Amino acid sequence: MSGPQPLRDTRFLDDFATLSTFGALPSGGVERQAATAADGEQREWLAAWLTERGFDVAVDGVGNLYGLETWNPGAPYILTGSHLDSQPNAGRFDGAYGVLASAHAAWRLAQHVDRVGAERFPYNVAVVDWFNEEGSRFVPSMMGSAVFTGKLDADAALATLDHDGTSVRDALAGIGFLGADAPPETVGYAEIHVEQGRGLERDGITIGLVDSTWAARKYEVVVRGEQSHTGSTVMADRKDALAGAAALIVAARELAERHLEPALHTAVSQLQVEPNSPVVVARQVTMNFDLRCADLDVVLEADRSIAATIAEIEDRYRVQIDRRLTHEWAAQEYQAAGVDLGASAADALGLTNVRTQTVAGHDSTNMKDVVPTVMLFIPSVDGIAHNVGELTRDEDCLDGVTLLTEVLARLCSGAVVDGTGKDGS
Amino acid sequence: MSGPQPLRDTRFLDDFATLSTFGALPSGGVERQAATAADGEQREWLAAWLTERGFDVAVDGVGNLYGLETWNPGAPYILTGSHLDSQPNAGRFDGAYGVLASAHAAWRLAQHVDRVGAERFPYNVAVVDWFNEEGSRFVPSMMGSAVFTGKLDADAALATLDHDGTSVRDALAGIGFLGADAPPETVGYAEIHVEQGRGLERDGITIGLVDSTWAARKYEVVVRGEQSHTGSTVMADRKDALAGAAALIVAARELAERHLEPALHTAVSQLQVEPNSPVVVARQVTMNFDLRCADLDVVLEADRSIAATIAEIEDRYRVQIDRRLTHEWAAQEYQAAGVDLGASAADALGLTNVRTQTVAGHDSTNMKDVVPTVMLFIPSVDGIAHNVGELTRDEDCLDGVTLLTEVLARLCSGAVVDGTGKDGS
Repeated sequence: MSGPQPLRDTRFLDDFATLSTFGALPSGGVERQAATAADGEQREWLAAWLTERGFDVAVDGVGNLYGLETWNPGAPYILTGSHLDSQPNAGRFDGAYGVLASAHAAWRLAQHVDRVGAERFPYNVAVVDWFNEEGSRFVPSMMGSAVFTGKLDADAALATLDHDGTSVRDALAGIGFLGADAPPETVGYAEIHVEQGRGLERDGITIGLVDSTWAARKYEVVVRGEQSHTGSTVMADRKDALAGAAALIVAARELAERHLEPALHTAVSQLQVEPNSPVVVARQVTMNFDLRCADLDVVLEADRSIAATIAEIEDRYRVQIDRRLTHEWAAQEYQAAGVDLGASAADALGLTNVRTQTVAGHDSTNMKDVVPTVMLFIPSVDGIAHNVGELTRDEDCLDGVTLLTEVLARLCSGAVVDGTGKDGS
Repeated sequence: MSGPQPLRDTRFLDDFATLSTFGALPSGGVERQAATAADGEQREWLAAWLTERGFDVAVDGVGNLYGLETWNPGAPYILTGSHLDSQPNAGRFDGAYGVLASAHAAWRLAQHVDRVGAERFPYNVAVVDWFNEEGSRFVPSMMGSAVFTGKLDADAALATLDHDGTSVRDALAGIGFLGADAPPETVGYAEIHVEQGRGLERDGITIGLVDSTWAARKYEVVVRGEQSHTGSTVMADRKDALAGAAALIVAARELAERHLEPALHTAVSQLQVEPNSPVVVARQVTMNFDLRCADLDVVLEADRSIAATIAEIEDRYRVQIDRRLTHEWAAQEYQAAGVDLGASAADALGLTNVRTQTVAGHDSTNMKDVVPTVMLFIPSVDGIAHNVGELTRDEDCLDGVTLLTEVLARLCSGAVVDGTGKDGS
């Protein structure tokens, strides 16, 4: 094979340790939500890192940060990346691992191209830190890649407000990352991410090759009751929105417990009570409500079951419950050619691998709809995610960088994109 | 009898309509939490109203507003009042009715004393608007009367912060009601309030004579789980604090439904989720949790039942639940002499009456521990409370003012306080 050698490069681990200091928490996790000061600091650091290694740094109009290696001026790019932003009180691997792995892999490939010449690599490579993948500060999530792929209007994204009324536009300007550069012309995409589940670790496999997403339905639920006195109002007269919401949360949990194969995941995690007073029965509760399964039919069956449960809760708790569908998708496939390329590259490197699915959304779920895409997972210890205890072992991190380098080499050689050079030759 | 004639005085209704314009909501309710601008405006209006009618206005060091009618200089006072502050999105009767009824009743009595002479009325009368009875902006509730009765330290009250970090001291200064006057020397207290329940209306009775409070236990509950991913974390691995909290809320409701006689009231109405993100399973939920019943034994039995339920929820939901007792009281009796005086006065006026209990706390529950106290209820339509739909009929409002006038006349004549002049004679 003609790609770079799978050398172990512990410089990655040193850089990852540095990256983990931005927004670091005493617990070992990080907090660097989109366009906060900590996000600005890590982006400055990444931009400097890229510049020092010869990348051209660019920032587009919604804060996506690029590092371009252009060995064939005028040719389009293979893009690789993930996101540096985090949830509140989060782990240090989610997203950040993928961005730094992309930077190191693209750098290794650029050095390789420098040595062997650009003839066999018609496409250039570019690293990307997508803006606001997490969606914890600004909704929706996967914002930067959604604008890049034309799924979200840039002006709508920039006008989005956080809880304090700060817009994306102002927040990006505040950290110096409201850019005006054109995004690179892109013909392929690769992303690597920690698994956020136990599958790889349990089965002792190093690489997950994502071949589809789970199906999902997400709702905003509003439970409406009536204010009354928490003490004096007799129970039978209460129209307690919080009690109704609680009954629905319990029902969602029990529904998941009844659907084990294929697994149904249900969640309510964000909830707002009005007036939220210690002496006033709640008049309204607003909350999210998610149903997810690999099988869309199970999601739809769960949906019908919840509709019936809601009617029972409305009757029993004397409340009104409205559901508004905010997100819906069937299980979506990643292009087979990209999955095959990932498998072939992993096999060539002797890395055990398995086809898998992603439950969580990633920027690659946007990208796969517009360009050939390779989405890779490496193991998560105990499957911990969105938690300061998130961990991936050093060896797995390094294997991931090595594999991603090989994948980029094959993509830049024209594999998948042109249907040529599939083995990077 | 020698007290004032029970004439109907619709000037009260006109004044009540004016009072209801402060902090008025389009829905017909009001919002005038303690020491907000709306509270300041209604206090200015009340102070002017009192001054115009010959009361001396005074404000003490924690914002209690007094209007004094002093026909026997140097003699102590019978105090009468309630609170003008409201919950968010509240009705216009709760508290405000009692303050204005007190002002009108004291004014009528003063006119009567002016006509007949002060000889038979050894005690003066003073109206009070207690600061922060509701406790929605500043915790604890019943703050002004708690300081007055020595149950709460004045400096601690003044240092209390609202959610925005504003202290009671600064908020009171901001509306011009951080006073320095000594509170009046007080030997008796009368309060009238809307019932906040259906009992009087259901039974067609005009006056409730409060002879005791319900027993109560109030807790702060903290449910601790672990952050994880709402999508990818398998259900069996989740330690979902919100699901655990929901199970407890449902259990509290079901517990109340099993205890109908005597009625047990349970409530959870204030809840905070962390991190409250649409994609992160909650690591922690903090909420209130109340148990109330006329019978303390039922409260204690419910308490033991909930402790067992909590252990089950901890096991099933893999969460940790801690309860901290924040308030506890047995059913407390109002002095019999005060209840008897109220009954005798109502009988004399031909107003149907019944002994009843208060589930909600009132400033009178503080006052009854330090001076002879009469606590009166008038009916609430449909028992609606802490809701913009709160309503009491005009006739009941007017009957309440008339009765309170008679009660004040008897208290000022020495009834109960001295054990003399029980009929105001």
